[in-house]
Amino acid sequence: MITREKHDRMANAIRFLSMDAVEKANSGHPGMPMGAADIATVLFTRFLKHDPKNPLWADRDRFVLSAGHGSMLIYSLLYLSGYEDITLDEIKNFRQLGARTAGHPEYGHAAGIETTTGPLGQGIANAVGMALAERILNASYGDDLVDHHTYALVGDGCLMEGISQEAISLAGHLKLNRLIVLWDDNNISIDGPLSISDSTNQRARFEASGWATAAVDGHDPEAIAAAIEKARGSDKPTLIACKTEIGYGSPNKAGSSKVHGSPLGAEEIVSTRQALGWEYAPFEVPSDILDDWRVAALNAAKKRKEWEGRLAAVDADKRAEFERRMAGELPANFEAAILDYKKKLAAETPTVATRKASEMALEVINAALPDTIGGSADLTGSNNTRTKGMTAVEPGKYDGRYIHFGIREHGMAAALNGMALHGGIIPYGGTFLVFTDYCRPSMRLASLMGIRSIFVMTHDSIGLGEDGPTHQPVEHLAALRAIPNHLVFRPADAIETLECWQVAIETRNAPSTLALSRQNLAAQRKGHSDENLSAQGAYELVTASDEAKVSLYASGSEVEIAVAAREMLEREGIPTRVISVPSMELFFKQNDAYRNAIIGDASVKVAVEAGIRMGWDRIVGSDGGFVGMDSFGASGPYKALYEKFGITPANVVAEAKKRLV
Amino acid sequence: MITREKHDRMANAIRFLSMDAVEKANSGHPGMPMGAADIATVLFTRFLKHDPKNPLWADRDRFVLSAGHGSMLIYSLLYLSGYEDITLDEIKNFRQLGARTAGHPEYGHAAGIETTTGPLGQGIANAVGMALAERILNASYGDDLVDHHTYALVGDGCLMEGISQEAISLAGHLKLNRLIVLWDDNNISIDGPLSISDSTNQRARFEASGWATAAVDGHDPEAIAAAIEKARGSDKPTLIACKTEIGYGSPNKAGSSKVHGSPLGAEEIVSTRQALGWEYAPFEVPSDILDDWRVAALNAAKKRKEWEGRLAAVDADKRAEFERRMAGELPANFEAAILDYKKKLAAETPTVATRKASEMALEVINAALPDTIGGSADLTGSNNTRTKGMTAVEPGKYDGRYIHFGIREHGMAAALNGMALHGGIIPYGGTFLVFTDYCRPSMRLASLMGIRSIFVMTHDSIGLGEDGPTHQPVEHLAALRAIPNHLVFRPADAIETLECWQVAIETRNAPSTLALSRQNLAAQRKGHSDENLSAQGAYELVTASDEAKVSLYASGSEVEIAVAAREMLEREGIPTRVISVPSMELFFKQNDAYRNAIIGDASVKVAVEAGIRMGWDRIVGSDGGFVGMDSFGASGPYKALYEKFGITPANVVAEAKKRLV
Repeated sequence: MITREKHDRMANAIRFLSMDAVEKANSGHPGMPMGAADIATVLFTRFLKHDPKNPLWADRDRFVLSAGHGSMLIYSLLYLSGYEDITLDEIKNFRQLGARTAGHPEYGHAAGIETTTGPLGQGIANAVGMALAERILNASYGDDLVDHHTYALVGDGCLMEGISQEAISLAGHLKLNRLIVLWDDNNISIDGPLSISDSTNQRARFEASGWATAAVDGHDPEAIAAAIEKARGSDKPTLIACKTEIGYGSPNKAGSSKVHGSPLGAEEIVSTRQALGWEYAPFEVPSDILDDWRVAALNAAKKRKEWEGRLAAVDADKRAEFERRMAGELPANFEAAILDYKKKLAAETPTVATRKASEMALEVINAALPDTIGGSADLTGSNNTRTKGMTAVEPGKYDGRYIHFGIREHGMAAALNGMALHGGIIPYGGTFLVFTDYCRPSMRLASLMGIRSIFVMTHDSIGLGEDGPTHQPVEHLAALRAIPNHLVFRPADAIETLECWQVAIETRNAPSTLALSRQNLAAQRKGHSDENLSAQGAYELVTASDEAKVSLYASGSEVEIAVAAREMLEREGIPTRVISVPSMELFFKQNDAYRNAIIGDASVKVAVEAGIRMGWDRIVGSDGGFVGMDSFGASGPYKALYEKFGITPANVVAEAKKRLV
Repeated sequence: MITREKHDRMANAIRFLSMDAVEKANSGHPGMPMGAADIATVLFTRFLKHDPKNPLWADRDRFVLSAGHGSMLIYSLLYLSGYEDITLDEIKNFRQLGARTAGHPEYGHAAGIETTTGPLGQGIANAVGMALAERILNASYGDDLVDHHTYALVGDGCLMEGISQEAISLAGHLKLNRLIVLWDDNNISIDGPLSISDSTNQRARFEASGWATAAVDGHDPEAIAAAIEKARGSDKPTLIACKTEIGYGSPNKAGSSKVHGSPLGAEEIVSTRQALGWEYAPFEVPSDILDDWRVAALNAAKKRKEWEGRLAAVDADKRAEFERRMAGELPANFEAAILDYKKKLAAETPTVATRKASEMALEVINAALPDTIGGSADLTGSNNTRTKGMTAVEPGKYDGRYIHFGIREHGMAAALNGMALHGGIIPYGGTFLVFTDYCRPSMRLASLMGIRSIFVMTHDSIGLGEDGPTHQPVEHLAALRAIPNHLVFRPADAIETLECWQVAIETRNAPSTLALSRQNLAAQRKGHSDENLSAQGAYELVTASDEAKVSLYASGSEVEIAVAAREMLEREGIPTRVISVPSMELFFKQNDAYRNAIIGDASVKVAVEAGIRMGWDRIVGSDGGFVGMDSFGASGPYKALYEKFGITPANVVAEAKKRLV
């Protein structure tokens, strides 16, 4: 039993660590950790199922600090609870180069940081994905192995971001009752009182989306605990509005935007020490308080030992599969399944849209890999993301493998991230490539975190046709290739599509986007090779009849245009080779020798892609030829559009010939 | 008085034009226009203040088809009402190349299309901007000149998109009671019944954000009319949930997702003609029905004549200013004000962050130009978007010029678009550059529409410092430059910042993004010139002491690094010039002679920008040097970050020297 006095001192330890660290860094956000210290203390000391000494065990509760600017809150919690990654020295080094204690919580910097947060609204949407992953895995592995909660601590900013609505309405619809959102309801934003920009009744809003809600005094530990207890028994996700005072304890700055994002200042820190009766030096936590925190963590860790016992009792095969999945490894038969199918494709040379080829690849992948969970943002029949036998996850019924994400591209992308972060699942989700714009903040975070979220983006050019320029990506391939650590694939036929899927699945430390055509494409690859040529990013698809005078480079649906252009050039006696470029990122990661050989030394280089030129200069040079787009598209049948914008074999030939001496 | 029978026939005219056009195109979405025909007929024949013969008059009601895939609804309405841009031939040419009747409604294709829609949720958020613009202009010009409604017709998809929450909560907060949203509540999405992905109580959700709501049978004209009438008298924005059957009238497909996005097929169209008693040939509208539509439009147009009378009675100066603003023209003294201030800057050579320089420029611009309305997504003090004397717009009080958009970047961007589209206002709004990712769908639409929305994006690099990689843009300059018809500015000092603002304000047919530094930058430009050098996109800032052996190219905060590197190289006897590149897009629009002269023929070319290389190859060549980023940033003090990532004069020198023979 934690007395009120003890609770207050434990919470004050968070407050002073936070304000001292921000003061020392002369940078950061003290107000949120000070205001939310009571909530966090109740959660960590009375409810959170975690084990600081084994922080990554599968069935731990997930805690997401969605209001990531309050990073000192989580660093304090992790230090106080005894996580080895966050030492007192790390806290003293807050926001300095190389510290684990970065300005915002960074996934991978320390165990206990379940996701990178900072861009507001992302954390709560990740938490929805985590809570969904938990229920899906529970459906496969039962309460003995998977039975935990996901807690998210959110601020007003998270709730104002549009993505939160997508997350909330999805979670409410799916009745994700293991999700508990603690709202740091402090009425303050950076510009001043929240009332200058918002007057939403948040409880009513959440209830409209099928949530249970409660409101408590966020400085009353018993009230907070009672609300969490009740939420844990709900058949709905729960929002607990915790009314707090930002910067709680600061006599002159609490409750104002002044304490949000700036150090309190030495003088005010002295006053706060006096006001809260905290007699200790900066960064000093008295040993009795530290002991209380460590004892709470030890108590929480008992649950892990019980779980280990249950795990040991599970059937060996099931246990091995569970452990494999949670470790993010692939089953032994995965590659063989891919190669078998690849041989079949080499024999059949189907003419299909790559979105269809993707579905065909997924039929194989989903059969070989129980880990995959698919979905679409209400474009299932267009994205071809649902394979045979995939049943849908439904409210309260989580044994399906397919998720109807609704018209929530951003929420979907963030939920995919949450599922990937949870572990045990390889998530993919689809929409049109142009709508990566909606997903982009989450796609960037997947890249920054280096997690295996897979984005299936169809209708990848003006080949989309009549829907017109609002639906036709033009700049999106370049814009996605611009994101560090993000693999962008644009396969040219069914074999390349399979190969790209293989790389996406096998790449554990980066997300992938597959850009797929609406329109049918002829098979380009002839014959079978076990080697995954797409994994090299680019390769010579068709050789020249003699020493090449022209090299043509293309991706996706334009490869067949390049191949047709090559035939025309060859007929005119101009030896021409064709390089397929399914992934620029992977190509530029190859060694110099490979890159130079593939780029080659033909005097004329022309790239073809139904997108903008940006990025291709690195291959063809700034004086090389390019056939593609330099404006938005238009509405019309797709063949008419390719003619209108001049993405034709004849134009590729013309671009090449005008460069021949 | 329109009888029920007449109403039904008028609405059926929409239904058959829509299904016939989709059938002929063999592409499109018939279900929505068929389902929403009654709602639209009531709105256009009984309420909408418009004049098809003078479609652009300032005080018309704005109608936004947020569910843009139902484009045949608006094309039918415009044709039937007598808008000259939409002829019957245009309708027959639906979705064909060059037609005004594109797959989705395209702003600029025809009068009456107030905004481009299709990407869901954008239209309702544009409508919020329009309704806000109306109230702001009303505060200046009174009910005589500005007193109209904004209507948006939205579908389930619009309401599931996160941006709708940002729009709804902003509109509710600001009590934009001239905004009336008609929800085509048909329970169907592409993947099937809405219930597979959503169970939101939309009325409760809107009410939680301060809206009035009503629910009506969307096929009962009197009920629809009564609800609109009531909404027009409300002191809040109103949502009217209109329960409809998608594909209304189709005996076998109505009420199902089959009718959403595919032609009905010849057979079903015959059945629908029978079921609705429509005896006319495809594309035939009987003359009595067409007359009824035209009479309704003539009646509506009377309001314009009355308004013309009131306008004529207004004080000549006020009227001239109103007409200038609505025409989107600048006051005669604008350029002089800019040049005066530019002289002052040339004399003072201030060392300031460009975000501060932007505020200084805005002090001049906002004083010279009553048209500007500014705001920020809760980063006012960081974005420096609020100039002296700018008071905030408040709920029910619209005489301010500053908008606290709240933590709603996407909603802000779409609202800026709505204000620009409304006319009379030049809107700008700020956030951090990294959060352009949140705004991107709206920024793209601004570019596609060619409208003057101005995005003030500060903290434009790792120079942001301690907040770390989630807040540090790396790929964003490239990703924004990738968008066609979008001007991206990255000024190097206070004079360039002023020049970039001048171009942004003077460019009527494209949006602009200003990327601005957090950190202080020394003045680079020496002396005054009336000429706007930034308008050329790039120019020689510092000449070489002799024939240049090295050319350095840089933008923004890296210009001073390039200048320092030049000094080091010159000291070593290597003649070096520095090119400042405040806008790549504008530079590439210059003629060959200018571009070649600026790029120059120094054998060594090195670009410096604290972002990725993508895009710079076009200037320095694929073998040129580049000093910048090729990964995400990190958390730490900004000077330490510049060192860590090697963006230093010494590294620029090293890059240059290793290329010197």
